[in-house]
Amino acid sequence: MLVRVKSRYRPVAMTAAEAMDGRVRRRERNAALLYDAAAELLATRSLDEISVEEICRRAGVGRATFFRIFETKEGLLREFNRRLTADAAARIDAAGDIDLRAALGHVRDAIIEAWGHAGPGHASMALTYAYHAPERIHDPHPELYALVRQRIERAMASGEIPGVVPASLAASLAVINLTAPVAWTLSHRADELDELSGVLLDQWYAGMISTPKPDRRRNGPRP
Amino acid sequence: MLVRVKSRYRPVAMTAAEAMDGRVRRRERNAALLYDAAAELLATRSLDEISVEEICRRAGVGRATFFRIFETKEGLLREFNRRLTADAAARIDAAGDIDLRAALGHVRDAIIEAWGHAGPGHASMALTYAYHAPERIHDPHPELYALVRQRIERAMASGEIPGVVPASLAASLAVINLTAPVAWTLSHRADELDELSGVLLDQWYAGMISTPKPDRRRNGPRP
Repeated sequence: MLVRVKSRYRPVAMTAAEAMDGRVRRRERNAALLYDAAAELLATRSLDEISVEEICRRAGVGRATFFRIFETKEGLLREFNRRLTADAAARIDAAGDIDLRAALGHVRDAIIEAWGHAGPGHASMALTYAYHAPERIHDPHPELYALVRQRIERAMASGEIPGVVPASLAASLAVINLTAPVAWTLSHRADELDELSGVLLDQWYAGMISTPKPDRRRNGPRP
Repeated sequence: MLVRVKSRYRPVAMTAAEAMDGRVRRRERNAALLYDAAAELLATRSLDEISVEEICRRAGVGRATFFRIFETKEGLLREFNRRLTADAAARIDAAGDIDLRAALGHVRDAIIEAWGHAGPGHASMALTYAYHAPERIHDPHPELYALVRQRIERAMASGEIPGVVPASLAASLAVINLTAPVAWTLSHRADELDELSGVLLDQWYAGMISTPKPDRRRNGPRP
């Protein structure tokens, strides 16, 4: 299993149209069959090495159904993340009245739980698809990324900021914090780039220089 | 001008091969001519409305040269960012011995300076190309993004975190902080997802709850 959580497709609320209702249930069942079959295959092989036909054969479901539900092989990753999120939401609900840090801690637990049980195939699925994005995101500005990374390495060397996060990752997040306000103000036609980018830089820096808390572990007990 | 900084192509160090040297200089000059021509056109129209032919005609440079230098029309954005970074590096150099926060403050100034002078064409260039990435980045996990955003909106409403950053933007950055360690540990074949994701979440949260500093303005005087 990719994620240890049962499929949680909520039945669509429909008063009449029972035929439609049956179709939704069939779709749910087929999605679960296909996803589980893919998950079993991904435990040992990469997504590239697995054909849609093979997934369908194992699931006993037709090829057309696969494409109707997932669109592409990569749609399986969306399903992986949908289940992961259902798991996170269930953890948060079970915890009751908690603050944001605790809630996001449960999201983190769900992420670790899902990826901790992921086979090499899942890793390659993520790497060849969506999780490349954080690296590709700096393709349009390689010099900017290099400049920021160089300064961060220097600050880690001098002790200005703790070196608890790899410099390449810290630089990526810093550049995202610096450029995100540009994207946001452009796409929202807002006129607050100056203020927003100042706030985000301050927040990023305040986080970087905050004392690491080695005792701040996962919310729940380890599995 | 997109960025108020002169082109800073460093001449490649070459002892012999003067013919090659001439080619590099021609390339520099052509790149500057093409970029400036594009920048003038982009001041009033979007990149979609401008043809490569039109840019080349204005610059007095051949079409093949354009594609050799920029590969695609979108290569102009890379050049925009290269100049922006040269500006940032010059500001940092001029400031001498400064810490990371100050250095990144200069990067921020360069970004604001470049985008503050950008015409509608530049905005559309960025929006139709690279700066969509921060939004597309959540396409594989829309439910995860929705869950985090919902919790952040609640935390802003209750006052747990200050509402100085738009919730959609804060949620995007939170999800990036939560998922970046997955991408990093996968691509580096490292075994520190648990620790790294805890540190990054703590840093993100420490930043979010840090007191906003409305007086922390741009490093330099406004232009």
